[in-house]
Amino acid sequence: MLSYKLYKFFLMNLVGRIIVIVLFMTVSAESFAENGYELWMRYRNIEEKNLASTYINSIKNIQIDRSFPSLKAAADELTLALEGLLGEVPVSDTTLVDGTLIIGTETSSPMIRNLKLSSKIAGTGDEGYIIQNILINGKSCIVIASNTEIGALYGTFHFIRLLQTRQDISELNILEVPKLKFRVLNHWDNLNGTVERGYAGYSLWDWQRLPMYVDRRMIDYARANASVGINGTVLNNVNANSKSLTREYLIKAAALADAFRPYGIKVYLTAKFSAPIEIGGLKTADPLDPAVRKWWKNKVNDIYRYIPDFGGFLVKANSEGQPGPQDYHRTHADGANMMAEALEPHGGIVMWRAFVYENSRNVDRALNGYNEFIKLNGKFNKNVFVQPKNGAIDFQPREPFHPLFGKMTDTPLMMEFQITQEYLGYSTNLVYLAPLFKETLDSDTYTKGKGTTVAKVLEDYQRSNGMSGIAAVPNIGSDINWTGHLFGQANWFAYGLLAWNPQRTAEEIADDWIKMTFNHDKDFINAIREMMILSRETAVKIRGALGLNHIMNFATHYGPGPWYKDNHWDARDYHKADTYGLGVDRTATGSNVVAQYAPELSKLFSDPKTCPQKYLLYFNHVAWGYIMPSGRTLWDELVHQYFKGTDEVTQMRRIWDTMEGKVDAQCFNHVKQLLKAQEDEAIWWRDGSVLYFQTFSKLPIPADLPKPEHELNYYKRIPFPYDWNGIYK
Amino acid sequence: MLSYKLYKFFLMNLVGRIIVIVLFMTVSAESFAENGYELWMRYRNIEEKNLASTYINSIKNIQIDRSFPSLKAAADELTLALEGLLGEVPVSDTTLVDGTLIIGTETSSPMIRNLKLSSKIAGTGDEGYIIQNILINGKSCIVIASNTEIGALYGTFHFIRLLQTRQDISELNILEVPKLKFRVLNHWDNLNGTVERGYAGYSLWDWQRLPMYVDRRMIDYARANASVGINGTVLNNVNANSKSLTREYLIKAAALADAFRPYGIKVYLTAKFSAPIEIGGLKTADPLDPAVRKWWKNKVNDIYRYIPDFGGFLVKANSEGQPGPQDYHRTHADGANMMAEALEPHGGIVMWRAFVYENSRNVDRALNGYNEFIKLNGKFNKNVFVQPKNGAIDFQPREPFHPLFGKMTDTPLMMEFQITQEYLGYSTNLVYLAPLFKETLDSDTYTKGKGTTVAKVLEDYQRSNGMSGIAAVPNIGSDINWTGHLFGQANWFAYGLLAWNPQRTAEEIADDWIKMTFNHDKDFINAIREMMILSRETAVKIRGALGLNHIMNFATHYGPGPWYKDNHWDARDYHKADTYGLGVDRTATGSNVVAQYAPELSKLFSDPKTCPQKYLLYFNHVAWGYIMPSGRTLWDELVHQYFKGTDEVTQMRRIWDTMEGKVDAQCFNHVKQLLKAQEDEAIWWRDGSVLYFQTFSKLPIPADLPKPEHELNYYKRIPFPYDWNGIYK
Repeated sequence: MLSYKLYKFFLMNLVGRIIVIVLFMTVSAESFAENGYELWMRYRNIEEKNLASTYINSIKNIQIDRSFPSLKAAADELTLALEGLLGEVPVSDTTLVDGTLIIGTETSSPMIRNLKLSSKIAGTGDEGYIIQNILINGKSCIVIASNTEIGALYGTFHFIRLLQTRQDISELNILEVPKLKFRVLNHWDNLNGTVERGYAGYSLWDWQRLPMYVDRRMIDYARANASVGINGTVLNNVNANSKSLTREYLIKAAALADAFRPYGIKVYLTAKFSAPIEIGGLKTADPLDPAVRKWWKNKVNDIYRYIPDFGGFLVKANSEGQPGPQDYHRTHADGANMMAEALEPHGGIVMWRAFVYENSRNVDRALNGYNEFIKLNGKFNKNVFVQPKNGAIDFQPREPFHPLFGKMTDTPLMMEFQITQEYLGYSTNLVYLAPLFKETLDSDTYTKGKGTTVAKVLEDYQRSNGMSGIAAVPNIGSDINWTGHLFGQANWFAYGLLAWNPQRTAEEIADDWIKMTFNHDKDFINAIREMMILSRETAVKIRGALGLNHIMNFATHYGPGPWYKDNHWDARDYHKADTYGLGVDRTATGSNVVAQYAPELSKLFSDPKTCPQKYLLYFNHVAWGYIMPSGRTLWDELVHQYFKGTDEVTQMRRIWDTMEGKVDAQCFNHVKQLLKAQEDEAIWWRDGSVLYFQTFSKLPIPADLPKPEHELNYYKRIPFPYDWNGIYK
Repeated sequence: MLSYKLYKFFLMNLVGRIIVIVLFMTVSAESFAENGYELWMRYRNIEEKNLASTYINSIKNIQIDRSFPSLKAAADELTLALEGLLGEVPVSDTTLVDGTLIIGTETSSPMIRNLKLSSKIAGTGDEGYIIQNILINGKSCIVIASNTEIGALYGTFHFIRLLQTRQDISELNILEVPKLKFRVLNHWDNLNGTVERGYAGYSLWDWQRLPMYVDRRMIDYARANASVGINGTVLNNVNANSKSLTREYLIKAAALADAFRPYGIKVYLTAKFSAPIEIGGLKTADPLDPAVRKWWKNKVNDIYRYIPDFGGFLVKANSEGQPGPQDYHRTHADGANMMAEALEPHGGIVMWRAFVYENSRNVDRALNGYNEFIKLNGKFNKNVFVQPKNGAIDFQPREPFHPLFGKMTDTPLMMEFQITQEYLGYSTNLVYLAPLFKETLDSDTYTKGKGTTVAKVLEDYQRSNGMSGIAAVPNIGSDINWTGHLFGQANWFAYGLLAWNPQRTAEEIADDWIKMTFNHDKDFINAIREMMILSRETAVKIRGALGLNHIMNFATHYGPGPWYKDNHWDARDYHKADTYGLGVDRTATGSNVVAQYAPELSKLFSDPKTCPQKYLLYFNHVAWGYIMPSGRTLWDELVHQYFKGTDEVTQMRRIWDTMEGKVDAQCFNHVKQLLKAQEDEAIWWRDGSVLYFQTFSKLPIPADLPKPEHELNYYKRIPFPYDWNGIYK
């Protein structure tokens, strides 16, 4: 803001007058409140003048062939980014000057063809790229080159990220190739616009006005995904609706595919197994029935008429009430292969979910997925992925990796993560998920000796089976800021970068995201990174300390519910609290889940003394008086974890409160309010859980900790007043 | 965009360098794509330098007491507006200089108290204001003064509008008082986030995170409403859910009320008549049952504990399946008065809908509302409004005014309009609704002699009954641009301004909106205004030419359906096409709706020769060969209307296409796509309807017009592929 007096002072001379205008413009730009719509593609003026001028001098002329759709997308993005970051757009002509940026493939760019980079570019595969400084005829140039146009687009986004994060661009020698081929988002969007487990508004897909109207937001969605390398999107919910396969919806999906194509994003659909009955008029969906097989072949051929590069199907079968091949006494492989055969001629794939469990209190649910699918190892068509979740239970705040990883040697597995915070406090809670993703990806399965990490298992399928992949259920919705919680954007961002390269660290991804989203103040970055990295451990302390899990409110998955019990479900099956102790015995004396892991791990997990503390109660039923590494008893340690967790949330609030003025006011208030709500939920979890478990341990709350404010019943009765039944069928 | 060469040229000297920076800032500001979020509160730099400097000199110091919430809102708005429009914010101190802007009430501002404006301010009532230039101690000042803080906020918005529309502010002498007291939006939002007949995304109310989190959007919603004088919002659907009256939801509604309060917006709720049973545990909802009456009293008392200035209830009773007093053989007055008595001590009101009809094919639906309510004239408590729609059928593209207007002499009527385009092509179609609103408001009822317009009837209740009001079902949702179609914003804007003053013209409102939303280019304004004004007549030609109505697709209300027929509903009841002719005989020889109007109108409507052509087929069954004022037969005229309508849409497309470059690219493409979709729907209506009516007229399509491309069945079978059943129960 410029006061009137200052204004008058400047008005006294010409240069002053111009400076006044400059300042006015700055004020004007700042008055745009930050609503989060831009995501990490926030291209604000680089204030470091020297750096900005170095960048300007390094990017004076852009040479790119806009006649290729993906290269046009790259050129458009550069225009937007450079306008924002540097305040100008370089020329784009054929002269070669110092500061020429050349982008493209050997096909699109004669210049690149002449550079003799073929052998290097060859190593970038279908989606990779190189970025390097090259002297051409004595002129300092930067080249972004690839085999494919989409590679060049990815390279362009990488290059823009270098500018956004203020990197030196004078000695670039980058070669990037994605470690996984299929990097997919599984939207759980219903055709009526609601999103199952969606906490950021409603579906992005405007089924009503498609295909007539394609909103600009579809392009921005594609840009965001391409900027982090995501190359596929499953448009609809795995709890599927056959209508999505009717012509009416296919022409709509095709309009989306057209919009996404330049950004390298393929469209996938969920396929309801009973579709041949529901929309095909058949009497059966038996996968060995010739009429059914023919129906799927015809349907798939139809889909490819509308969407020539259709990606394939994601299927949830014989799981939580969804129909599937077992309805006809066929195997999951029979079902998947039927679809796979229809898709194969077109290059499509099947992603067949391994999330199945017997709805029976007599069987440990952690066993089911492995047992069902391990016997089908190698029985699937070559274009089928089996898709387990990261853990065997269900997207919990912490679980050991799914035992199928490393064991499914002959059928490729595609990891499924969850970005939407179904079990992590919705979009109300700030929980940075990269540490969770990393924990699973870095887990050692020992299946081919030490160092056989889950990431390596996933990557190795590329060599052995010709395909590799990863998927995640996004946290994206119609909210202006896309993810409900501004910090939820970091999880979308992190997932994309980790899908491209699981070796990236959670810390460096956080750094990039903070710089791209907020600012470049070192203290700010350090504080926020620390808060983000801490946040996942904080969430675990509150929701699943020491290996506990699945003890949330049954109906909503928000707030605590270790006490929940009905005819079908009893939370005690997940925590087994009794007067002796706490935790689920999944060793040989119990459900023997440990046997599904490599012997090294099985041994480790089976003994409370060697079992990592974070998985202790997942694998072992432990006495309340058991002495933990901290020297405290299990009971005392558990209660301390709850209190530490809530204290950490309070600490997050304090950190954020010091950021007032360092971020836009709207953004500041948004996060401030939500952290308060996060604290409230944490206390509800803490006090409810501690009081509940106390009814078993009969032990006092450690003397150094305060007592809960209310009786147990108070916490049990807290309503989550949302019309869940209206949304979730 | 600034080319590199130009940049180099500027770089040659210091002043040049500064200018370059200036230009960069401009580029940077322009690069913000226009997504429509700002609505008409779009405060872009005034480019006319002389005018801007005049404004700057007239607003050098702002004196306002920010300790009053509504005055703080006014100050915040001025800050935002002046930063945007003028690039600076004036000082705010107590010195009196030329260019002092004084805002407030005699209570908040000693300066205003000293100005001896009391008698003038007294005339502004509870919500009005004066804006005038005054010399104070020889200094040129502008004063915005009122009796209430909200009046000052309204005055501030008016003042900002003067700047946005580039008015002279040197000789202001404005006194504004709203003509109607209650100016309300009736949201049809469900608790699960869907919006009945909503075509702009989903509900704005984040029931999940309220009251913990109040999104910035709530403030922007309130700003938009206050800027056009809307002072009430009914949060939920008239097809009501009792849960909205439970404590869980009341604390959420209270958080919204808190956010809206500084902007003068009261919160109302819909009351489901059966709530005492559903959430009260009673066995009956009989309005004469003492326990029921007590329940409502207690419930209302409860509501006022959470929301001390709660507005009251909107009720849809015994209409389209909703419960009501007639379930207990009581009258609508019995039901309304029960609630009114509970609300009265707190100053709350009841808005009781008159939209009732017998679901019987034997009775002309146009008769029902009048017959049901006219007999209750004067039987309602003094704080009850009866709320009829503008016409007797249902928010059609055109209907004659509802016959209750002018006849309901002893109970105040509150008009209900529909802004959401349920029958006007959703948010896909550009239809400017001010002409529709004006047509009803300006209609002469003749009930107290010539000149007794509907607007006058509404206004006169203020004197006779101490309250007057108007309501509309908004087109607002979670879409970033709020209304789905950018031009839908004009309808929200127009409704507000007409609610404040029904005398405003559709043209001047369009002018203001165009200037505030787009730019100040005269040719642009003229072309767009012309297109907007035309658009409603165009929509009528396509959907209800010559007085036809309610012949849309039965399930979706999008696209044509004059052929629809099932056990409960037959579109022929609304158009009565037969071999003789077309139109519904509502004269004395038919259902005699005409008798519900004043004798002057009854006579006029009953004779095809005197009946306004626009209402011809609403009141008369007319022979296909009847000669119309144009000289054409009814059949030829009807077909011509359909073709003229579609031609006009094509014309709208042409006009818009010439605007490329004159508006932001994102905005341009948005409207361009939608106009194409609008044309497609128009052709579907035209060809389907013409071919259908031809099966009765057996007459050829006039030789000068082209023939439809397909057979009738083709048009009948066009699906509207949206999952309606999933959304609308």
